[in-house]
Amino acid sequence: MTRSLSCFLLVLSAQLTLWTDLAQASSGDEYEAALVDAVDRQRLARWHESYSEEVHVAGDEGDARLIDTLRLDFETLGLEVEVHRFHAYLPRPVSAKLEIVAEPEELGGGPFSVGASPLPLALPIREKAVEGDRFVSDERTSFGWNAYAASGDVTADVVYANYGLKEDFAELKKLGVDVKGKIVLARYGGNFRGYKAKFAEAAGAVGLVIFTDPADAGFRRGDVWPRGGYANETYIQRGSVLTLDYPGDPLTPFVDATEDAERLDPEEVDLPRIPVQPIGWGAAWEIVRRMTGDGAPNAWQGGLPTYYRLGGKGLRLRLQVEQERRLVETANVVGMLRGTEQSDQWVLIGSHHDAWSFGAGDPNAGSILVTEAAKAFAEAAQRGRKPKRSILFAHWGAEEYGIIGSTEWVEGRRQQLEASAVAYLNLDGAALGTRFGSQASPTLKTMMEEISRVVEHPDGDSIWDHWNRDGEAPFGDLGGGSDHVAFYCHAGVPSAGIAGRGTPGVAYHSNYGNLDWYWKMVGDDYRAAEMLAHYVVRWAARLADYELLPLDPSRYGEDVVMHLDAMWRNRPADEAKERTENLRSAAEGFSAAAREDLEALARAVEEGRLDAAEMRRANEILLGMERLWLTDAGIPDRPWYRNLFAATDADSGYAPWMLPALRWTLENDRLDRWKEMEARYLQVFHLLQQEMSTLAALADRGAS
Amino acid sequence: MTRSLSCFLLVLSAQLTLWTDLAQASSGDEYEAALVDAVDRQRLARWHESYSEEVHVAGDEGDARLIDTLRLDFETLGLEVEVHRFHAYLPRPVSAKLEIVAEPEELGGGPFSVGASPLPLALPIREKAVEGDRFVSDERTSFGWNAYAASGDVTADVVYANYGLKEDFAELKKLGVDVKGKIVLARYGGNFRGYKAKFAEAAGAVGLVIFTDPADAGFRRGDVWPRGGYANETYIQRGSVLTLDYPGDPLTPFVDATEDAERLDPEEVDLPRIPVQPIGWGAAWEIVRRMTGDGAPNAWQGGLPTYYRLGGKGLRLRLQVEQERRLVETANVVGMLRGTEQSDQWVLIGSHHDAWSFGAGDPNAGSILVTEAAKAFAEAAQRGRKPKRSILFAHWGAEEYGIIGSTEWVEGRRQQLEASAVAYLNLDGAALGTRFGSQASPTLKTMMEEISRVVEHPDGDSIWDHWNRDGEAPFGDLGGGSDHVAFYCHAGVPSAGIAGRGTPGVAYHSNYGNLDWYWKMVGDDYRAAEMLAHYVVRWAARLADYELLPLDPSRYGEDVVMHLDAMWRNRPADEAKERTENLRSAAEGFSAAAREDLEALARAVEEGRLDAAEMRRANEILLGMERLWLTDAGIPDRPWYRNLFAATDADSGYAPWMLPALRWTLENDRLDRWKEMEARYLQVFHLLQQEMSTLAALADRGAS
Repeated sequence: MTRSLSCFLLVLSAQLTLWTDLAQASSGDEYEAALVDAVDRQRLARWHESYSEEVHVAGDEGDARLIDTLRLDFETLGLEVEVHRFHAYLPRPVSAKLEIVAEPEELGGGPFSVGASPLPLALPIREKAVEGDRFVSDERTSFGWNAYAASGDVTADVVYANYGLKEDFAELKKLGVDVKGKIVLARYGGNFRGYKAKFAEAAGAVGLVIFTDPADAGFRRGDVWPRGGYANETYIQRGSVLTLDYPGDPLTPFVDATEDAERLDPEEVDLPRIPVQPIGWGAAWEIVRRMTGDGAPNAWQGGLPTYYRLGGKGLRLRLQVEQERRLVETANVVGMLRGTEQSDQWVLIGSHHDAWSFGAGDPNAGSILVTEAAKAFAEAAQRGRKPKRSILFAHWGAEEYGIIGSTEWVEGRRQQLEASAVAYLNLDGAALGTRFGSQASPTLKTMMEEISRVVEHPDGDSIWDHWNRDGEAPFGDLGGGSDHVAFYCHAGVPSAGIAGRGTPGVAYHSNYGNLDWYWKMVGDDYRAAEMLAHYVVRWAARLADYELLPLDPSRYGEDVVMHLDAMWRNRPADEAKERTENLRSAAEGFSAAAREDLEALARAVEEGRLDAAEMRRANEILLGMERLWLTDAGIPDRPWYRNLFAATDADSGYAPWMLPALRWTLENDRLDRWKEMEARYLQVFHLLQQEMSTLAALADRGAS
Repeated sequence: MTRSLSCFLLVLSAQLTLWTDLAQASSGDEYEAALVDAVDRQRLARWHESYSEEVHVAGDEGDARLIDTLRLDFETLGLEVEVHRFHAYLPRPVSAKLEIVAEPEELGGGPFSVGASPLPLALPIREKAVEGDRFVSDERTSFGWNAYAASGDVTADVVYANYGLKEDFAELKKLGVDVKGKIVLARYGGNFRGYKAKFAEAAGAVGLVIFTDPADAGFRRGDVWPRGGYANETYIQRGSVLTLDYPGDPLTPFVDATEDAERLDPEEVDLPRIPVQPIGWGAAWEIVRRMTGDGAPNAWQGGLPTYYRLGGKGLRLRLQVEQERRLVETANVVGMLRGTEQSDQWVLIGSHHDAWSFGAGDPNAGSILVTEAAKAFAEAAQRGRKPKRSILFAHWGAEEYGIIGSTEWVEGRRQQLEASAVAYLNLDGAALGTRFGSQASPTLKTMMEEISRVVEHPDGDSIWDHWNRDGEAPFGDLGGGSDHVAFYCHAGVPSAGIAGRGTPGVAYHSNYGNLDWYWKMVGDDYRAAEMLAHYVVRWAARLADYELLPLDPSRYGEDVVMHLDAMWRNRPADEAKERTENLRSAAEGFSAAAREDLEALARAVEEGRLDAAEMRRANEILLGMERLWLTDAGIPDRPWYRNLFAATDADSGYAPWMLPALRWTLENDRLDRWKEMEARYLQVFHLLQQEMSTLAALADRGAS
């Protein structure tokens, strides 16, 4: 780390002064200052109330009304608005029931285990009403459900599978526990819930019940709602269990889900085949306390007051789930502020608008930043100050079902985006606290650290001072699970996400995720939202208005080395060295050279040695370098994922696979294909190097 | 480690062949084999039933009857029996009550929190009767109590202090939580319970309630009694809260507590001044779930189904404790098998006989090994084969109150023990499973590893194969808490403890610690006891019968280096080096030389080059070297602790302080006295070296 850190700070400082000078030269500072001043906390609160006043699930009437509201908001700001309608294959919940139909004769002892209950015992699958929450009992809220679960009615014994990770099912197998014909009980956490269902189904389970464990999000973490913000016994995490080799509409991979698009036959699509039901820990308790089989491993013990066991031994559950899957129309709302010089170059900011309930946190804590940023730029535009490049503000639809809206939009404009998209910033549910965090693709990191040094934190100092105590910004890697995926992994658009966290509580995907929860737990002063909005406008202003695009391709070198190290950690050191040394030296060599070339280019720009055409050419080259990571064949087994730099984790969903073609060889014991994959990465660096030389040549022009 | 490990194995192999050869030469093998054959599992079971049939708390009628039984058993075996009576200042429980007298208006939510109860609510302080346990409801079982707690009746708010460690109270202070005038609620674990009381009292608390947390010993660990062996909601850990600068009778430090001994005035003795009450987690739940103050740190969250808080906020407890402290007569029972040649040299084996209830686990799982070992040696003796040195088999009294019986016995015979005691083996509650563990002072380790390689494990292979997977025996260091303390820390007799663990459950110090629990959880086949008995007879036979004492003083070198490293870990490396290099090189130099001298000596013995007088001289020197660690002044602040090599931890009780005079300077920020203390250790190595030279001279006699 130290090595890459030091290089990193070197290039950082170089670029910092560099771009700052350029910005001053181009009045960028005044522009940013005006945008920052325009951000208004009262208005953030108003957007929030407006977007969170009713339940708005993709395709329902609340969703339709919100789409109109968002369109109207953008139109009022004078943006060029596109309401991009699409038709996606979405389920809706019809009914669900979870019952205990038989229990062991002798139940465990202890003061928490009440005796046998009259059977069948129906378990709660909806949040309870609580004092101080005016939203939860709204008639349009749904019971707990997992979108795309199969319809079915099964009665079976139960097997506890911890978090339902790949390794958890492997452990069950090792312990000789047969999942075949059983209903799996798994707790939320550790992976995308869809993989719990996928692995359960693969193991032969006939159903899956997913619960939120008190140790992970309930009383073991802090006070529960409404006293505090953590999961009370009826908190239920909804969410999709879709796991395909591509995000977006299940029936239209690669193409926009227009009304007349060619569609797959749902029968051909690998949708879940078992019923799945999410529950709270109150309901889970009724199950867990009745299990009398062998004890579960220590690490599998959760926060409920009993010994967690692997099997029920006489305990039988009935799980009945009915969902209707059909084509539904919903829409993305995209507002454009056209740039004055390179209007064909797009800077994109987005968050989805659909929710599982009121969506005060997910997504509206991010949606309000999109609209507020648009408002800030619109105000400046009305006073005649517009950015050089175009900025697109997007509210995506149907993200919760499978990142559908943004994916369809990208699939319909892939060439255009590859040609001219500068970067995408994702804000899904961002303003949930003041503890700043960020994921970013390499070329954006230098600029984003720079911004973190000038944005004020509500507790004083800069975001940087709070974010980063050890001199290196802890950027995460972009994984799956939100609207950046199509931009980043399919179209090769450098992407980033920012968020504020640190609020003691969890209302994620539940009917408690409403304004009452947000105001009590996150606060009603909107300081977190204000901080992030300041960051967003600066981010967009720099990418859209700096004369030289603030992209730092030299970062690819350090990051590739970092990811190679991570990939081979816990493997034989000598083999790691041998396998990675070619690519490592290519990456290191590229970074070193690229930093010099970029500084030369910056000086050339500073000294005005580049004419307009050359400047445009330089920016085109910088953009083009991002796309060199794209491969038309896609990565092994997942052709939709076209970015050789990053993909989502094929076994967990949320996590990323960095350098996925190489990672694939390790995860699938196909080291026989390592060389072949490595060659593709060496080729990328070869091409990156060529582009850099062209930039260097431009920079040299007329150099003294 | 690698270094000391390699040296270690070197000397080990040398000594192994050495002593084994000597043993063969002296028919040691046949003797050991006969002793091993004599061990009988049916008889172990019979001793166990006999010693565990009734409650026997030090000084009560059950205790008196057991003392008679033990005497009779030894007499029947033909041993010379001493019933060493002493008069100790012991409390007895008169009454106790713990009530919730006031609770906050609004209690926490969740399905586990029943509503408000009629107050005052009396909390259970006695184990409940359960099916399959014929002992727990015996009329002579006591309610839960902590010996030496002050009598008192206090009503106050409650403060949760985690484990009540020194650092826990420091954390409370840091968090601004005032303990003054409060009743502290602390969970068992992490230190000797007496220190929980000591720290609570020092912080100004008016009372202490100690509970067993389900996360530490209850349902989070496994099935609870009677379904499994772990703590059910009424399991209560009894035990003394005595913490003085010396073990033994509080009124007679340094001298035997004979009837007419000079005694301190109890008022002058630093006995607890606050009432203390132990409870089970069922009672603790009633308190914890009613606490509504600020949340406790994450690491303080336990296994009860609520958010653990620091304060009660409106919750008030009443704690009433009455104990009567008075002089009580009880006794040690010591049986001697006199040696044929050096009968003045003693090999000692012991376990205490007093218990908090039936004592099937603690202590009788150890007591039966003492008697069975005596039986094996007695049988051989009847067939005419007696050991060269004397073996003393001891059942100590009143250990539970403060290691009293063994301490009084040692204090009354200190000169004699210093002159001629070879070693002490402690067996307190040893046979609780088949997972072997051991603590030993350095000079015994080589021999004890050798024994572990020849004693069979019930699961096949040797103890060594199961004990030790990485080539180095994981010997622990002898700390406090049992009958080796006076031998080791006061009289400088090399000591060891062995035990079998690994049973999934805890009945420690509760009324559930009876034969029903032992037979169900540990088993009624007595294979663990048999394995340990085999070890014990070999241990005693080698020390009592090998011509050359199997003590390996060269081990002091490696262990001192190890302890210096441990002491300075997490401190500045350069300072550590500078502070420790003198002593380190003295220790390493000594070990290297000592190993050569010992091997030369062994050869001389093997070749019969030493006459009887010289052999006796060699053994006297080996014994004498152990006492070179003794200091008449004692270690800083604790004059009773006379062994510079080891003492008990002054802040936790159970743990050891190795090289305590040096450790003291670190624990008390008195590095200004490091040099002075270091000098004492350098002097020890100087004297050890001198003795070694004398041994070497003996070895050289007539060497070819």
